[in-house]
Amino acid sequence: MYEDTIAAIATPLGEGGIGIVRVSGPEAVEIAKLIFRAKNKNWTAAGSHHLFYGHIVDREGVVVDEALLSYMQAPYTYTREDIVEINCHGGIVPLRRVLELVLGCGARLAEPGEFSKRAFLNGRLDLAQAESVIDIIRARTDAGLKLAVSQLRGELSRHIFSLQHKLLGLLAQLEAVVDFPEEGLEESAAAEIMVISKDLLSEIEQLIKGAETGKIYREGISTVIIGRPNVGKSSLLNAMLREDRAIVTEIPGTTRDIIEEILNIRGIPLKIIDTAGLRETEDEVEKIGVARTRDSIGRADLILLVLDAARGLAGGDRSIIESIGEKKSIILLNKVDVAEIKIEQGEVESLAPGSPVLWISAEQGTGLSELEDTIVDMVLGGRAPSSDTVLVASLRHKQALEKAASHLAEAINGIHGKLPLDMVSIDLRSAWENLGEITGSTSTEDLLDRIFADFCIGK
Amino acid sequence: MYEDTIAAIATPLGEGGIGIVRVSGPEAVEIAKLIFRAKNKNWTAAGSHHLFYGHIVDREGVVVDEALLSYMQAPYTYTREDIVEINCHGGIVPLRRVLELVLGCGARLAEPGEFSKRAFLNGRLDLAQAESVIDIIRARTDAGLKLAVSQLRGELSRHIFSLQHKLLGLLAQLEAVVDFPEEGLEESAAAEIMVISKDLLSEIEQLIKGAETGKIYREGISTVIIGRPNVGKSSLLNAMLREDRAIVTEIPGTTRDIIEEILNIRGIPLKIIDTAGLRETEDEVEKIGVARTRDSIGRADLILLVLDAARGLAGGDRSIIESIGEKKSIILLNKVDVAEIKIEQGEVESLAPGSPVLWISAEQGTGLSELEDTIVDMVLGGRAPSSDTVLVASLRHKQALEKAASHLAEAINGIHGKLPLDMVSIDLRSAWENLGEITGSTSTEDLLDRIFADFCIGK
Repeated sequence: MYEDTIAAIATPLGEGGIGIVRVSGPEAVEIAKLIFRAKNKNWTAAGSHHLFYGHIVDREGVVVDEALLSYMQAPYTYTREDIVEINCHGGIVPLRRVLELVLGCGARLAEPGEFSKRAFLNGRLDLAQAESVIDIIRARTDAGLKLAVSQLRGELSRHIFSLQHKLLGLLAQLEAVVDFPEEGLEESAAAEIMVISKDLLSEIEQLIKGAETGKIYREGISTVIIGRPNVGKSSLLNAMLREDRAIVTEIPGTTRDIIEEILNIRGIPLKIIDTAGLRETEDEVEKIGVARTRDSIGRADLILLVLDAARGLAGGDRSIIESIGEKKSIILLNKVDVAEIKIEQGEVESLAPGSPVLWISAEQGTGLSELEDTIVDMVLGGRAPSSDTVLVASLRHKQALEKAASHLAEAINGIHGKLPLDMVSIDLRSAWENLGEITGSTSTEDLLDRIFADFCIGK
Repeated sequence: MYEDTIAAIATPLGEGGIGIVRVSGPEAVEIAKLIFRAKNKNWTAAGSHHLFYGHIVDREGVVVDEALLSYMQAPYTYTREDIVEINCHGGIVPLRRVLELVLGCGARLAEPGEFSKRAFLNGRLDLAQAESVIDIIRARTDAGLKLAVSQLRGELSRHIFSLQHKLLGLLAQLEAVVDFPEEGLEESAAAEIMVISKDLLSEIEQLIKGAETGKIYREGISTVIIGRPNVGKSSLLNAMLREDRAIVTEIPGTTRDIIEEILNIRGIPLKIIDTAGLRETEDEVEKIGVARTRDSIGRADLILLVLDAARGLAGGDRSIIESIGEKKSIILLNKVDVAEIKIEQGEVESLAPGSPVLWISAEQGTGLSELEDTIVDMVLGGRAPSSDTVLVASLRHKQALEKAASHLAEAINGIHGKLPLDMVSIDLRSAWENLGEITGSTSTEDLLDRIFADFCIGK
């Protein structure tokens, strides 16, 4: 347990009905007693997990805000410490005032992620679980949320623990053979270790393969919509927004401004970059021209190139098609609804071999579902996860798995090359440690600091 | 009581540790039972004001997020209805998912302010108290917060009720005299009613006078910093920010971005407008020139004009001084720390009679405290409120008071002009009704709709 008590505003900052100042540590209750006047004077006696109505007062006894106070007694709390959460009005000034009073009574301002770090250090969560918290908060689609929640619930950790358990079994077996060479078991042991190691390596490689998919759900795909002026780029964006925001836009004042430019394509976040370009007047686009398009293409993972089916290919179109290069791209022949089609699919395909070419009408919404299918196919490459697959989503986890895989491969090579088994054992132990970095069983203070610094404050 | 159950995200939207979906109404508990899997299966039996740990699940039983659920039983709740608050992770996607599930189970999305409207209609708060909630959330300084909290606690309402009570006493007295004319009390009654009415009128006029101050604390003063390029306008803003944000900037990631341009001058919010101008490179400022300055002045309540004491008055300075006109303004002779002062205070004063002229050094922070004194004097005009003054802060309240005052004045005139007392009584009754609009005892459905529509959602 830590000795100091930490506090922070735990809700997002802005304007809302409710905001929370969270206090965790041995002094949480004593601090609350100093600033909280409850209707029920004897509130601390009511026991854990109760809510109390009252007022927050300053040192002069002047009421600062009305509040509901949640009292949660250690150890059944997020941090495993005593926690008091002050639910007051969700404005910046009332929350700041309440936080100041709490800090004035001896709490220290929490560092980003410090509540979760304490949850980890006090054994409430393992490291992979604690890391999932920030992925939940920052999730961009339901699919990303689901992935992060499954990690919070320990799916990934259980998988890693089981791999570590198998490695420990191997190490024990090795130790027995090395300690009792007279038994002459070296050869048969080596064969068995080889088989199990190969199985383990293949399991880890499966996880590494899945990490590409996990990353896509977690971070999304940077996408750019390009094309000459007036081909229908912003109509396309609007049509896709209409399609995917149905539920979101029913909830007034929620997400529109904030995740403005993220499209949800069957759970894959499509981050539309350079939307400024999409909204400029066409004159400006003409001025900015090809250099800007090249720059956007450079930053994108996926390109949606829009051509005007009613106008036929112009020189400008050809130079844009050429600038795509090797990037993943889909070519959209827009305005399929016009009377006279002047573009030839074959010609487009020959200019951009490998890029799917689709007919759409952004205005009428034609072909959008096929476009979504094509995006999913292209991005996941047939790797759409089944619901019980454990997916690795974080780069850190993927790197730890790659280190473990490489040590396992070394161990397998060692057995193959008839190295002494105690040499092999060193590689297996390293692999075990690499896996432990994921769940935090073998992590360093330094690593922890880096991980939690990326959290938001109040979590 | 209402028959439907409403729900909304009650915390500000953004990225935070905790977010809350609030559900209020007769079905709140039944809805929670459908989507909340508690560790304690029998959670509804534990009684009101408890917190429960568990998970929110969708229709297929898939976990959507971890949650703490607060259960508050009617009538001891904000709305006087059953309330369930789902504390989940504070990201947009998890909150939106949880809200969708709640709505899918039969709750209706709450309108802005609908929780507070129910609190009012169910008798938990009077109208002035309910209105204060949004002022608390939007408070810009501690002084503004204090004013709003005192209104929430009923200070203003008690004052209004006492005025209404006195008016009712007068009306009863009048009625007795009118009903029993044979007693011959008309004359003495009229004299007494005159005295009391004059007292009441003077009390109401006091409140109206204070409303100017209340409005300043609640809404702030639009201020513009003007002056030629390189005189130190942005240094001044930065110096004032340093002075007043000491506490705020100690709290990382809190307010800097959000209330960026609001200075807290002894509790008065100074809204610095047109800061874009302050941050432009000086070249751009030159280009934009005098037209823009005139426009800023037009929108401001207070002007801070900066002159460079090291450069002496130039033609540009003179035309800027002239453009101030009749607006409240303070002239700052900046760079008082330079070796050679080339500006004459007398000349400046003669160009802008009535504007205080102060010597400052924005770089060194000299003269800032005097500047603050001058701002407070100028803005409040000696009307700084003592801590027990009841201040009216809302325009709506002020207008209701003005109508009441005018009806009272009519009544006094009527008595003076020896009008029949039942005519006088009509005016007194109108004054009583006008006061009732403030606390909501005489408000119409239409008025309520207008008031609560201005609230944020979730409150």
